[in-house]
Amino acid sequence: MTKSEPSSIDAYAASEAGSALAPLTYAPDALGPNDVEIAITHCGICHSDLHLIDNDWRTSRYPLIPGHEVVGTVAKKGDYVSHLNLGDRVGVGWQCGSCLACEWCERGDENLCGDTIETCVGRPGGFANSIRVDGRFAFAIPEALSSHEAAPLFCGGITVYSPLRQHARPQSRVGIIGIGGLGHLAIRFARAFGCEVTAFSSTPDKEEEARSLGAHHFVSSVDDAALKGQRESFDLIVSTVNKSLEWKRYVAALRPDGVLSFVGALDEPLTIATGLLLSGRRSISGSPIGGRVAIREMLDFAARHQIGAQVEVLPMSEVNTALDRLRRNEVRYRFVLENG
Amino acid sequence: MTKSEPSSIDAYAASEAGSALAPLTYAPDALGPNDVEIAITHCGICHSDLHLIDNDWRTSRYPLIPGHEVVGTVAKKGDYVSHLNLGDRVGVGWQCGSCLACEWCERGDENLCGDTIETCVGRPGGFANSIRVDGRFAFAIPEALSSHEAAPLFCGGITVYSPLRQHARPQSRVGIIGIGGLGHLAIRFARAFGCEVTAFSSTPDKEEEARSLGAHHFVSSVDDAALKGQRESFDLIVSTVNKSLEWKRYVAALRPDGVLSFVGALDEPLTIATGLLLSGRRSISGSPIGGRVAIREMLDFAARHQIGAQVEVLPMSEVNTALDRLRRNEVRYRFVLENG
Repeated sequence: MTKSEPSSIDAYAASEAGSALAPLTYAPDALGPNDVEIAITHCGICHSDLHLIDNDWRTSRYPLIPGHEVVGTVAKKGDYVSHLNLGDRVGVGWQCGSCLACEWCERGDENLCGDTIETCVGRPGGFANSIRVDGRFAFAIPEALSSHEAAPLFCGGITVYSPLRQHARPQSRVGIIGIGGLGHLAIRFARAFGCEVTAFSSTPDKEEEARSLGAHHFVSSVDDAALKGQRESFDLIVSTVNKSLEWKRYVAALRPDGVLSFVGALDEPLTIATGLLLSGRRSISGSPIGGRVAIREMLDFAARHQIGAQVEVLPMSEVNTALDRLRRNEVRYRFVLENG
Repeated sequence: MTKSEPSSIDAYAASEAGSALAPLTYAPDALGPNDVEIAITHCGICHSDLHLIDNDWRTSRYPLIPGHEVVGTVAKKGDYVSHLNLGDRVGVGWQCGSCLACEWCERGDENLCGDTIETCVGRPGGFANSIRVDGRFAFAIPEALSSHEAAPLFCGGITVYSPLRQHARPQSRVGIIGIGGLGHLAIRFARAFGCEVTAFSSTPDKEEEARSLGAHHFVSSVDDAALKGQRESFDLIVSTVNKSLEWKRYVAALRPDGVLSFVGALDEPLTIATGLLLSGRRSISGSPIGGRVAIREMLDFAARHQIGAQVEVLPMSEVNTALDRLRRNEVRYRFVLENG
């Protein structure tokens, strides 16, 4: 048994919508029997953190401590935690709890549970020196993965791994739209799946990097003639962008039975002629993060194939510099904050 | 060996876009080695026949002989036809040929072949006393099915059977939008699959019939409050309509991993917020007719469960009466023309 006496946690918090983060010390909730306290070594920065800071989704409460790509070591654990030991290196992503009793949880699709708990929504996140979460949503990290490369796997990684896991086979021809925090991992995963991989980007100077990440082909995502040339070419296209593109070209770029999967919601509604779906039995779908089985599978797969995020590491104390640069898209491809 | 000497076929044809049909006698192409000549006893009338007559798709050539829900007996057969005997009762649907060599044909998904031949597009259809088609697209009809009830299975039936076959399991909760030529068969099939079936219709007085066809529940397709009450209720919704509805309500009515499948193209593009797809990993898809394996499977299933179309039979000579009434939606649920 581990003692669950209160302690204090040093974090960085936004005091109001859009504000810079400032140090904040808080007393965590008592450690429950299923909980772990993680001494955080690294935390990735995701675009969702910016949305939360800015209250873009009208759900933010302040002070708000962002951060949901957490890596650290188990410092305390509740009485019921048997799958982790003190000192184990673990990660936590966007989701840190679910009902664990509904149909979706029982299937291992906790990401589809209606009673989800999100790591930094309505509770303190990972821009901190410690975090307390339900240990059932903390995942041991294979030794082969370094902590800074692993951190972004827990949100960005699983977000793109899930639709590949669901729809891609090794024989598939896969398109990835957007080469950023999510897209660069999608290219690496799809390549390691054995797929033929095409990267779509509006930034021509990313072609070389896309190829070095594993893409066999590169297509401008905004060149209409180039897109027309991709007709009936893909079994799966994963879109990681939130800006609208000429979606009819991407649906037409699907082979029969192909799937266009969105892992990020578009800023505007999608408009599409249903005839395009009918003619080749094509689908448009969405995929939100991933369940616990998928996360463990991804970690195992990533370790075997040495797939980590390409990151820039900054000290946790420079969180505002990182956020400012992320707002200007000045990172290839993910910031990870590190506790010294 | 059967002789393939030319003979003449008596048919009904439109001479120009939108015209009434008039008798037309034509000399068929020579009977190829894979072909059969079918002495037509029955032919269903599908909305697509009206679209072809009216040149709604800008592909019609005149004189145009509609009809693609053909039932009759094999009167002649080419040298290579070994799976059918003279006198066999067979049916032919929308598709009467494909390349039989591409990936999709090899998979048994001939309906996804890019080189499809359509029974009454650019060649003479089934409003006639005979038709010559590739025998590989003529299907033996089980004895348990009467000819007039079977005819609409070959287009309307397979169109709705296919998405059920692809997406529904016996445990599924299935919604069917529209109770017409397609929808009434979809209800029967879904009920026989073992599913919990909900019929959506804009016509309240169809509730009793929907229930008699097998629907467990009936919901007005245009009552917004009723639709809101269906949130997260369906694993599959098959839409047989072409008018736009409040599609966001139908997507929200899908359970996680649910599919909204269109079997008819909408008159207007579909507009949907991708966040709705993301949150429950929902999909929007389309399904066009069905391949040969699916058609044979459907016929076997329909025979075992005594599923035929609910039809009104008129003599072939009254084709214009039937077409006029179909234009006014005065049929429950399918006209079938009969040769005397």
